[in-house]
Amino acid sequence: MPTFLGQNQYGKAENRVVRITRDGATHHIKDLNVSVSLSGDMDEVHYSGSNASVLPTDTTKNTVYAFAKEHGIDSAEQFGIHLARHFVTSQDTIHRARVRIEEYAWERIEHSGEGDHSFVRAGQETRLTQITYDGTSWEVVSGLKGLTVMNSTDSEFWGYVKDKYTTLPEAYDRVLATDVSARWRFHWSDDAEDAPDWEESYAEVKGHLLRAFAETYSRSLQQTLYAMGARIIDHRDEIDEIRFSLPNKHHFLVDLAPFGLKNDNEVFFAADRPYGLIEATVLRDGCEAKIPADLTNL
Amino acid sequence: MPTFLGQNQYGKAENRVVRITRDGATHHIKDLNVSVSLSGDMDEVHYSGSNASVLPTDTTKNTVYAFAKEHGIDSAEQFGIHLARHFVTSQDTIHRARVRIEEYAWERIEHSGEGDHSFVRAGQETRLTQITYDGTSWEVVSGLKGLTVMNSTDSEFWGYVKDKYTTLPEAYDRVLATDVSARWRFHWSDDAEDAPDWEESYAEVKGHLLRAFAETYSRSLQQTLYAMGARIIDHRDEIDEIRFSLPNKHHFLVDLAPFGLKNDNEVFFAADRPYGLIEATVLRDGCEAKIPADLTNL
Amino acid sequence: MPTFLGQNQYGKAENRVVRITRDGATHHIKDLNVSVSLSGDMDEVHYSGSNASVLPTDTTKNTVYAFAKEHGIDSAEQFGIHLARHFVTSQDTIHRARVRIEEYAWERIEHSGEGDHSFVRAGQETRLTQITYDGTSWEVVSGLKGLTVMNSTDSEFWGYVKDKYTTLPEAYDRVLATDVSARWRFHWSDDAEDAPDWEESYAEVKGHLLRAFAETYSRSLQQTLYAMGARIIDHRDEIDEIRFSLPNKHHFLVDLAPFGLKNDNEVFFAADRPYGLIEATVLRDGCEAKIPADLTNL
Amino acid sequence: MPTFLGQNQYGKAENRVVRITRDGATHHIKDLNVSVSLSGDMDEVHYSGSNASVLPTDTTKNTVYAFAKEHGIDSAEQFGIHLARHFVTSQDTIHRARVRIEEYAWERIEHSGEGDHSFVRAGQETRLTQITYDGTSWEVVSGLKGLTVMNSTDSEFWGYVKDKYTTLPEAYDRVLATDVSARWRFHWSDDAEDAPDWEESYAEVKGHLLRAFAETYSRSLQQTLYAMGARIIDHRDEIDEIRFSLPNKHHFLVDLAPFGLKNDNEVFFAADRPYGLIEATVLRDGCEAKIPADLTNL
Repeated sequence: MPTFLGQNQYGKAENRVVRITRDGATHHIKDLNVSVSLSGDMDEVHYSGSNASVLPTDTTKNTVYAFAKEHGIDSAEQFGIHLARHFVTSQDTIHRARVRIEEYAWERIEHSGEGDHSFVRAGQETRLTQITYDGTSWEVVSGLKGLTVMNSTDSEFWGYVKDKYTTLPEAYDRVLATDVSARWRFHWSDDAEDAPDWEESYAEVKGHLLRAFAETYSRSLQQTLYAMGARIIDHRDEIDEIRFSLPNKHHFLVDLAPFGLKNDNEVFFAADRPYGLIEATVLRDGCEAKIPADLTNL
Repeated sequence: MPTFLGQNQYGKAENRVVRITRDGATHHIKDLNVSVSLSGDMDEVHYSGSNASVLPTDTTKNTVYAFAKEHGIDSAEQFGIHLARHFVTSQDTIHRARVRIEEYAWERIEHSGEGDHSFVRAGQETRLTQITYDGTSWEVVSGLKGLTVMNSTDSEFWGYVKDKYTTLPEAYDRVLATDVSARWRFHWSDDAEDAPDWEESYAEVKGHLLRAFAETYSRSLQQTLYAMGARIIDHRDEIDEIRFSLPNKHHFLVDLAPFGLKNDNEVFFAADRPYGLIEATVLRDGCEAKIPADLTNL
Repeated sequence: MPTFLGQNQYGKAENRVVRITRDGATHHIKDLNVSVSLSGDMDEVHYSGSNASVLPTDTTKNTVYAFAKEHGIDSAEQFGIHLARHFVTSQDTIHRARVRIEEYAWERIEHSGEGDHSFVRAGQETRLTQITYDGTSWEVVSGLKGLTVMNSTDSEFWGYVKDKYTTLPEAYDRVLATDVSARWRFHWSDDAEDAPDWEESYAEVKGHLLRAFAETYSRSLQQTLYAMGARIIDHRDEIDEIRFSLPNKHHFLVDLAPFGLKNDNEVFFAADRPYGLIEATVLRDGCEAKIPADLTNL
Repeated sequence: MPTFLGQNQYGKAENRVVRITRDGATHHIKDLNVSVSLSGDMDEVHYSGSNASVLPTDTTKNTVYAFAKEHGIDSAEQFGIHLARHFVTSQDTIHRARVRIEEYAWERIEHSGEGDHSFVRAGQETRLTQITYDGTSWEVVSGLKGLTVMNSTDSEFWGYVKDKYTTLPEAYDRVLATDVSARWRFHWSDDAEDAPDWEESYAEVKGHLLRAFAETYSRSLQQTLYAMGARIIDHRDEIDEIRFSLPNKHHFLVDLAPFGLKNDNEVFFAADRPYGLIEATVLRDGCEAKIPADLTNL
């Protein structure tokens, strides 16, 4: 046969697990979407269909639910670490496990009834993490997606290259809006070291990201992106690298002159497509980039 | 020709308008998605293609943007009233206008920079309104969609009809979760009467809805639905009718017995499809139902 | 209590059922998404939470799967009729049943292996039907959504009303494109009459719809809509009424003049939002409109 | 500053271009979604906000539309090659261009009117290509997504690893269904060599993929995946590598025993989540893998 098998991985994707912890009438909730992907000695299942080395994806699903009971879910990161370690250490044929988790935030509903077990989904960004383990070292990349932000002023865009296809007028006061998609890699990789406080880290990174967006006077979305990344790395020792994918959600000033009206940066058309897309990695000095350049490959 | 024209309407849908109001360095933002639908003397355009009675949909779009400048956007409801009145009173051939608006909420980003013009989209529910005007009277139906709520206890389901296809075990302590979709109709219909404070009304209705959900010990989602509706009508004189469409977002208790584990209402599988769907109208005594029974028709 | 219960309905939505029929090594497939909605003596479940009149939604789900075995699925319409009749006639507390079905089409994969049991999903439009039964008479409304069509010429738009907000230039040769969403109501309502051949009817309606779109020289999308509806009613005696919701998927001619190029109706920008939305009903002479005017209510 | 800039790229994403070619009354159509991503000397725009090296994303959009006129669109691949070459060779600061294209297929509507300029969107899979150029060599990766296929028999799954979390019963006759997502890399990389016939290549790859799926008796989805990849590489000399991402769209046999019915592989529940996810690369002997392992990174 003139062909051979390259990189391969398999598992159960999008296991939706909700874990409730009861502290008397006060309940706590974790709401995750867990995807497991395993690699190892899998040549035969591809070449001949023999499943002798294959732990079924159904079993990986069962393990997610069983571990939610056995280990609880302190954080998405810690839960992913439990799962990844289990698959690699318990199965001879599995040499690498990658666990991806989406987390949906819930807030408490304030009310005057008894107990504290009523929640409303926050609905802002989706929290993300990806745990990869090869039996020796860990890679933890966390992040978020769907965090939509806007500065209604303090953004300019001018002084750019002009070629024969350039028609864009320069802008000295524009709206800057984006849906932040970010992934950040933790320095931690070794069981012998203390792991970060994953919950605190997430809250702090999100806070720095938002404040850097708000406090940066922007001459390009690239500049804002870099300011966000640099601020996070400056303030959070546990993070070595961060990558952003920032769509420039264009808000076009509507031409009201035909109606005898002046639009003094008041009325905008929020466009869907096309959109600018700005992507870059910010690294701590001395560190190597490991987060892939593309969030999607086609 | 053995056929004739029935009800018809046309207009421009999903005009995305963002209105920024500047109060010095403090900005305010309204972010709407506006759909206009007009009816009137439109037989000829259907029968022969003559557009002599047709105000172009492009013009309705322009009007949305021009009105955002001319009238500002105090509330989605007030903005829709301006638009609907304009189309019916300014065009001889237009006899009814319906304006539907989605509103996306933004929160301020707290930061230590200058000015107050940075925002993050709230992302929870989408606020809705629909204004209908026939030149004489108004119908205002507001609402929301995508408000996801959960009670992790205080919900039961038992004592139901059992036929030969019934296998469901009775539940005495279950999770109750739903994505609230609600539409409420205001009593106001006449220009001679004072209109409600649309912004205050929305905030209050949402608050009552959430608290009623949290405070109701539930023996069925129908009971919870009614409690939510009744509480709103009890507390808000401006509302005569409210309709809910509540998917029962099933959270199935995972069977962990095969793994030697007891699942004491701790670990749940959040299912996608199928889902229960509970829909009902709650009315003020003496009022007539006008909100359609179905949020979607196929 | 100053409130009372209005129209209400409940059931299990989006039951995904795939039915395979084996004719030796030749298999046949039906792929449906079935939603059941029941109404009847349901006051108590709303007022007090008593489920004594409630057939669980889980049971309606089970019934869908059991009926797929017991009755097979000759057509979505026939399957819905079986289900609706069952709920109304077998339960004292259920007085109306409505069954909505989406159907996904599959084509056979041509190959040189043995047997004929390999399929590829067609992916074009989604077929729809809605069966309503009150114990006495039937209403069958079928339809489709997501059928995207385009005429690259033979479309004009001019001679329309111009007001102070009108800027649109008249067009004498434009692209006309839309995603057809249509619902048609059958005359059949009585068990004593022969029911139509549902499968043949669907194929014929779709064919007439496409050909009418292609063969109509269009001066407005309204004219094209009416031509499509009239042709169907002219050719299909079993149908009394049809309603269309047609987004005008704008294809804007790109201005290439800044680049020294002439755009002779060759290069278009396919826009997302906003879009024109044209909705109308076409009726057979003497028939009354029963399909709701709006496919969505907010 | 203790941070530095890593990989970065920018451009205009999702430019929706429709190109009509008129051959008398017979029209031809190409419908693309084009995303441009550029890299080069972009440190300053990130560090200081200087745009002196930045060709605006708006200009890349204009270039897409101008090139649709100047070069036409023979194939998505050829169009992407024109664009990528232009950006790298015409701009001193741009050293790499990547063009990603989605293509939507249209079929002709058969009718009895004059002319041949009416189309219906095929709606099956979306065709993909990605062109990367660094001024010296080319990488062309084409593919497809959303091709949903099903074998209603000739699939088994047994003989797998069982651990303490395994509950899955072995299956000797199951439904095998997946949404094929595939990317294949062409050998061609050098302007001095003849490029493949891109249109013919796509049609042939899709055909082999479908037939391999249909003709493979499957003992695991991995085996089917490999058979599909090997067949394509065996038959198409122009392709060196292919990667698949195949969700196992579970069709669960419904337990009808509680209703006294036997389900002889006739009635299935088509589940949404979770799903198995099988991903692997198949390579030509002697070739190196270049397609990224992950279609999405979180």
